[in-house]
Amino acid sequence: MIIVMASWAVPEHVDGVLAKVQEMGKQHHLLKGDSRTLIVLTGEEDPDAQRHFANLPGVERLLAVAGSFKLASREFRMENTQVFVGCVPGTDKPVVFGGREAHIIAGPCAIEGESVSMEIARQVKAAGGKLYRGGAFKPRASPYSFQGLGKIGLKVLEKIRREVGLLIVTEVLEAADVDDVAAVADVVQIGMRNMANFRLLTAVAKTNKPVLLKRGMSATINEFLMAAEYILSAGNPNLILCERGIRTFETHTRYTLDINAVAAVKQLSHLPIIVDPSHGTGLWKLVEPAACAGIAAGGDGILIEVHTDPQHALSDGTQALLCDKLPGLMKKLQGIARVLDRDLS
Amino acid sequence: MIIVMASWAVPEHVDGVLAKVQEMGKQHHLLKGDSRTLIVLTGEEDPDAQRHFANLPGVERLLAVAGSFKLASREFRMENTQVFVGCVPGTDKPVVFGGREAHIIAGPCAIEGESVSMEIARQVKAAGGKLYRGGAFKPRASPYSFQGLGKIGLKVLEKIRREVGLLIVTEVLEAADVDDVAAVADVVQIGMRNMANFRLLTAVAKTNKPVLLKRGMSATINEFLMAAEYILSAGNPNLILCERGIRTFETHTRYTLDINAVAAVKQLSHLPIIVDPSHGTGLWKLVEPAACAGIAAGGDGILIEVHTDPQHALSDGTQALLCDKLPGLMKKLQGIARVLDRDLS
Amino acid sequence: MIIVMASWAVPEHVDGVLAKVQEMGKQHHLLKGDSRTLIVLTGEEDPDAQRHFANLPGVERLLAVAGSFKLASREFRMENTQVFVGCVPGTDKPVVFGGREAHIIAGPCAIEGESVSMEIARQVKAAGGKLYRGGAFKPRASPYSFQGLGKIGLKVLEKIRREVGLLIVTEVLEAADVDDVAAVADVVQIGMRNMANFRLLTAVAKTNKPVLLKRGMSATINEFLMAAEYILSAGNPNLILCERGIRTFETHTRYTLDINAVAAVKQLSHLPIIVDPSHGTGLWKLVEPAACAGIAAGGDGILIEVHTDPQHALSDGTQALLCDKLPGLMKKLQGIARVLDRDLS
Amino acid sequence: MIIVMASWAVPEHVDGVLAKVQEMGKQHHLLKGDSRTLIVLTGEEDPDAQRHFANLPGVERLLAVAGSFKLASREFRMENTQVFVGCVPGTDKPVVFGGREAHIIAGPCAIEGESVSMEIARQVKAAGGKLYRGGAFKPRASPYSFQGLGKIGLKVLEKIRREVGLLIVTEVLEAADVDDVAAVADVVQIGMRNMANFRLLTAVAKTNKPVLLKRGMSATINEFLMAAEYILSAGNPNLILCERGIRTFETHTRYTLDINAVAAVKQLSHLPIIVDPSHGTGLWKLVEPAACAGIAAGGDGILIEVHTDPQHALSDGTQALLCDKLPGLMKKLQGIARVLDRDLS
Repeated sequence: MIIVMASWAVPEHVDGVLAKVQEMGKQHHLLKGDSRTLIVLTGEEDPDAQRHFANLPGVERLLAVAGSFKLASREFRMENTQVFVGCVPGTDKPVVFGGREAHIIAGPCAIEGESVSMEIARQVKAAGGKLYRGGAFKPRASPYSFQGLGKIGLKVLEKIRREVGLLIVTEVLEAADVDDVAAVADVVQIGMRNMANFRLLTAVAKTNKPVLLKRGMSATINEFLMAAEYILSAGNPNLILCERGIRTFETHTRYTLDINAVAAVKQLSHLPIIVDPSHGTGLWKLVEPAACAGIAAGGDGILIEVHTDPQHALSDGTQALLCDKLPGLMKKLQGIARVLDRDLS
Repeated sequence: MIIVMASWAVPEHVDGVLAKVQEMGKQHHLLKGDSRTLIVLTGEEDPDAQRHFANLPGVERLLAVAGSFKLASREFRMENTQVFVGCVPGTDKPVVFGGREAHIIAGPCAIEGESVSMEIARQVKAAGGKLYRGGAFKPRASPYSFQGLGKIGLKVLEKIRREVGLLIVTEVLEAADVDDVAAVADVVQIGMRNMANFRLLTAVAKTNKPVLLKRGMSATINEFLMAAEYILSAGNPNLILCERGIRTFETHTRYTLDINAVAAVKQLSHLPIIVDPSHGTGLWKLVEPAACAGIAAGGDGILIEVHTDPQHALSDGTQALLCDKLPGLMKKLQGIARVLDRDLS
Repeated sequence: MIIVMASWAVPEHVDGVLAKVQEMGKQHHLLKGDSRTLIVLTGEEDPDAQRHFANLPGVERLLAVAGSFKLASREFRMENTQVFVGCVPGTDKPVVFGGREAHIIAGPCAIEGESVSMEIARQVKAAGGKLYRGGAFKPRASPYSFQGLGKIGLKVLEKIRREVGLLIVTEVLEAADVDDVAAVADVVQIGMRNMANFRLLTAVAKTNKPVLLKRGMSATINEFLMAAEYILSAGNPNLILCERGIRTFETHTRYTLDINAVAAVKQLSHLPIIVDPSHGTGLWKLVEPAACAGIAAGGDGILIEVHTDPQHALSDGTQALLCDKLPGLMKKLQGIARVLDRDLS
Repeated sequence: MIIVMASWAVPEHVDGVLAKVQEMGKQHHLLKGDSRTLIVLTGEEDPDAQRHFANLPGVERLLAVAGSFKLASREFRMENTQVFVGCVPGTDKPVVFGGREAHIIAGPCAIEGESVSMEIARQVKAAGGKLYRGGAFKPRASPYSFQGLGKIGLKVLEKIRREVGLLIVTEVLEAADVDDVAAVADVVQIGMRNMANFRLLTAVAKTNKPVLLKRGMSATINEFLMAAEYILSAGNPNLILCERGIRTFETHTRYTLDINAVAAVKQLSHLPIIVDPSHGTGLWKLVEPAACAGIAAGGDGILIEVHTDPQHALSDGTQALLCDKLPGLMKKLQGIARVLDRDLS
C-alpha cells in the first residue's frame, strides 16, 4: 500500500504516519517528491491496513498496489483450473469446465411442474446438451410473484437426472437449504443477489460440490473475484464463475452483458467463467448473438434459459429461447469455439 | 398493463393476444391507432402477467401502468407512518420515526471491544443522542477482513443499552441469527447487501421489531419499495427505510448519495426514510455536508458512523467522524430541520 | 402517448387534460380502469407533447408508446442499409458496410508524424486491411495533453491514401473543420464526445460523405439512434454506427463494451454498426477477445487501434495492438464471420 | 506516477522501464517489495507519461499520485475564488459567486417569446431574484423538437436585462455564436453536452466573461475539474461550476443529483459551484427538496427553471417550478444558508 501525503502536510504529519507504521511493525520506504511525500508499505497487502492511515492528519489518500484476491489470482495459479462436474448420468462421459471444451447448460428459469420440466429436459438432451438448469427456489423482486416449488422442485430435478440423463445445476438461496440442494445438484448455483452473501458462500463451499457463482449485478470484477476467494479459502477449489450482465444506465436491455469481464477474468484468474446471455440481455431475440459473443470472448460455457412455451413460463418468459432453437445455436457456438481452437459439445 | 403490438403485427397476432387475455379472464380495451394497436388490461397490475404476453408473436413490448408495490405506496396510506422505536432506556422519552422530529443514530461501524464501544456510546449520549448503532455481525468483501465479534458484540450492545441508556440499532446477516439479534436490538437493521435477500426480510419481519431497511447499492427506488413490500406484507408495519448511496461511475466518493431518492420516497410512500452520509460518501470530510443535505431534502433522520479514534476503527475508519464533531453537527441539523418546520433531538 | 392519471385524480383533473387534448387537436381514447384513468393519444408520437401534460393537475406520468426515432428504424426501412464507402485506392474493389462482408478499420489513435503513420499504414495494408484510421484532430481530457497535428495530420492522411492505397477514416471536432476533413476522408468520424453535438452532426451530414457516428459513453441506444436521426433527417443516408463502450461502475476496464447494443441496433435499425474494442476495453490485452465478440454479435466491422510501437504512441498507447498481431486477429474474425454465413476481408 | 511491475516481472523488464525513465529524463525511486517492484516517478504528474510505460513488458499497471488538474485545485489556490458577475442592472448591487452569499438564477428553460419570457422575468425580479436564465439556443435530443429562437431569443434577453433589470445567464452551443452570446450575457453558460467540447471551452474562455460550466452527465469529478482547467488555462479565472445531475441506473428521476460532488468540489477546488435541481431531478415535485439539499451541502447558488405556465413551456415543462413557488423556496434557502453562517439574496 502507498500512503500519499497531502501537498500541505507538515513534517509532524509525516512523523505521525511513520509512528503508526512502526506501531504496526510494517516495513516501509519514505519518498519525498517535489509536490508530495509518499510512504510505501512493502510486504503483503493488508485489506484492513487502510483504516489505520486513512484519516491520520495530513494523509491525502491511499493507493492499493495489488488486487486483494489471492487464491483466485493467476499469480497464485498460472494454469487454468479444470472443474470436473461429473459424468453424464448413465454414461462415462466426463464433463469438465475450464478445459478445451465449452459446455451449454440449458433449461427453464424455474421448475414449474413435472411434465413441462421433463419435456424441456428431453429436448435439451435431444439437442446434445449434457447439463440442465432449473430453479426450485426462486428469488423474486415481488412478494406476490411465484417463488418456486421448493423441495417438490428438487424431486423433479432428481427425476430428470435419473430418467433423462442430464447433470443438474440449480440454485440455493439460504444456508438452511444447502444440504437438500447439494443432495440433488451436480453444480450448486449461487445467484446474482447472493454473490455478497458471504455466509451462504461459505456454507456452499463446505459441501465440496462444484459451485457456480454468478456475478452480482453491480459487483466489480475485483469484488467478483473476492467473492470467489471466500469459496476457495473455505477449501473448495471446484468453482465456476458466471458473467450474467451488470446494471447500467441502459434500459432497452434488462442488463448489460459485460463481455470485457469474461476476457478480463480469464487473464486475472485461473478459474473457468461461463456466460448467461438470457439474463445478460433479458430479451430472447438478443440471446443468440450474445451467446455467440460469450464464446468468442473466451467463455468456458453458456448458461441459457429455454422453454417449450415461453409465454407460459412462470418467470422470465421474456428472455427464454424456444427449445427448438437450441440445436441451431449449439452448431454456431461449436463453429466459433473451433475457430478459437476450442470445441463445444 | 398495456400491450403494445408491433407496427407490422397482423390481425392474427392481435387475435392471439386477445385469446390469451380471455384465457386469463382479464378485462381489456382494444385500441387501433394509426401506427400501432394497443391492448390495455384494466384491474390490478399483475407482476406475473408480462410472461404471458411478452413473446407472443407480434407483441413489441409491455408498459406497466402502476408501480408494483402496494402496501408501501402513498395510495394505500396517505398519512405518514410513524414508527415507535421505544423510550430512551431509563426515561419515558418516546422515540418515533416519521413524525415531526428527525433523529440521529450514531456509533461505530463495528463493535470491536467493550471499552471503546462504551466510550463512544457515552459520547453519543453526552451529545444528546438517543440511538446507538454498531455491528456485531459484519459482512466484509474480503474473507481476510475482520468479520465482527458476533454474539460477544451483542452482549456489549446489551450493556450499552442498560448502562449508558441508548436505544440499539444493529444488523442481522442471516435468518439463523434473527432471534439473538432481535433480543438485543430496538431496531433490527437489514444491510445493503441483503436488501434483496427475501428470506431474511421475511424472517426479520416476523419478529415485529422495528426494521431498518437499507437500500441496495444498485436497487432502483421501485425495487427498494418492493423490498419494503416484503416486510409489510409479512405483517410488520414498523419499517424505516435508509438511503445509503448507490453505485455509479463516480470513483472519488465510495458511493453516490442519492438525495433525489429521499424526496422521491417521501412522495411515493408513507414510510419514514433516513440518510446514511457515512457510507453514502465514504469520506469523513464529506459526512457533515451530506448529512445536512439529507435533512434538507426531507430525511427523517441520519445514520452516522462516529469513533473516538477512527484510525484504529476495525472497519470503515475512512468514513467515521470524530465523536467530538457530533455536537456541532447536531446543532446544524437541528437548525436546518427547524427552517423546514421540523425539529431534531 | 399514454397519459396516466393519478389514482386520486378527480373528474376535474381528467377534464383539464381532455381540454388540452382538444386544444392540441389530438385524437384520443379515454379509459377508466379500476385503479386509474388513462388517456391514450393516437397518431404520430410527438416528442414535445409531454410538456403539455406532464404537470397538469392529476397527471401521474406519461408513457411513450414508440421510440422517437423514425428514419433510423427498421419500421421505416426493413432491409439493411448498405453504405458504399468507395473503392480501395488504385483498385476497383468496392468497400461496402452493411452487406455480407464485415471490414476492419485499423490505424493509430492519432497521427503523430509522417514516418510512423506511413509505416503503420503499410503494415495495415500488408495484413489485408482496406481502411485506415487516425486522428488529425484529437479531443483530450487534459489541456496539457497532445491535441493532434491538425491540418498537417490531414496532409499525412492524404499521402497514405495516395501512396499506400487505403481508404481514410478520420474525426472532425467542429463545424469549422468539416470541409477540410471531408476533403481528405472517405469516412468522416464523429467521436463519442460529439454524439450529442447536434450542430456538428448536421454540418457533417451536409457533406454527403459517409459518416461514422460513435455512441456517446453514456448515451442510451435510443439516444444513439436519435443522434443518427439528425444525420438521416439532414438528408445523408450514408451512416455507419459504432459501439465503443459505455461508462459503468466497472473500473478494471476503461469502458464497458456494450455487446448487447450491437445486436439490439441490428434489430431496431437498418443501419450498419461496427465495434471499437480498443476504446471499448482500454486494455490491449482485451482487444482481441472483444473484437471476436463484436463480430460474433453481428457487428459489421471492427475499428481498432494498432501501432508499431505502442509505448511511444502519443495517445492511448495502453489500448493499441501491435501491428504484427493484426494478421492473426483478422484470420480469427474471418473464421467467426463465416460461421455466421458472413465474411471478412 | 507509480509504475507497478507484475509479480512475475524479471530484472530485464525492470531494466527496460528504467531505460525509458532515463530516456525521458525523469527522476525516480526504485523499490523492491516482497511481491512486487515499484518505480516511483517524482516531480510533476505528466498526463501523457502513462503511454510510455503502460505496455512495456512486465508492467502491471500505473498509479497516478495526484489529480491531473492544477489551476483548478485548492493546492494551487487555498482561498475561494470569488467571481464578480456584475451589478444588478440599474443598481450598484454587486453580485459575486463564491463569497458568503449564495444566489438564485431563475428563468425558463428556453426563451419562447417576448411576452411570456418578460412576464417570468418580472416575477423572478419580484421574488427578489437578481439573475435570469433562459436559453436562446437549445440542444435537443430530437431533430423534430423545438431548437430555440436563436438570435431573436438573444434580443429578448437584452430587453429583459434592460427593462426588468436582471443579470443574464444564457448558453452557447458553438464557437461561431460565442461573440453574439457574450454581447448579451453577463454569464456565458456551457451546457452538459458541451463540457468535453474543448474547442468551445477555449473559445468561451477567451471572451473573459464569467463562465458557467455544467458538469457532463457522465463526467467524473476529476474530468469536471479538468474541463475547468481548459478555461482557467486559457486565461479566464471567472469560472462558476454547476452540478446538474449524473446519469445512473435510476429511472424514476431524470438524473441523479450528485450532492457529494458539491461538497467534494468545495474541498478539491477553489472555484464556486452551484446546483441545478431542475435537471438534477427532472421532476418539479422534487425541485424544492433538492434545492434545499444543494445549499445545505455548501452550494454557492441554485440554477432553477421556473415558468408561469409549465404545461405550455416549449421544453422541459416537467421540471419547471411555478413562479409563485419561488418566494417560498427562497425563504427556505435563505434560512438554511444562515444556519451554515452564509446568506442568500
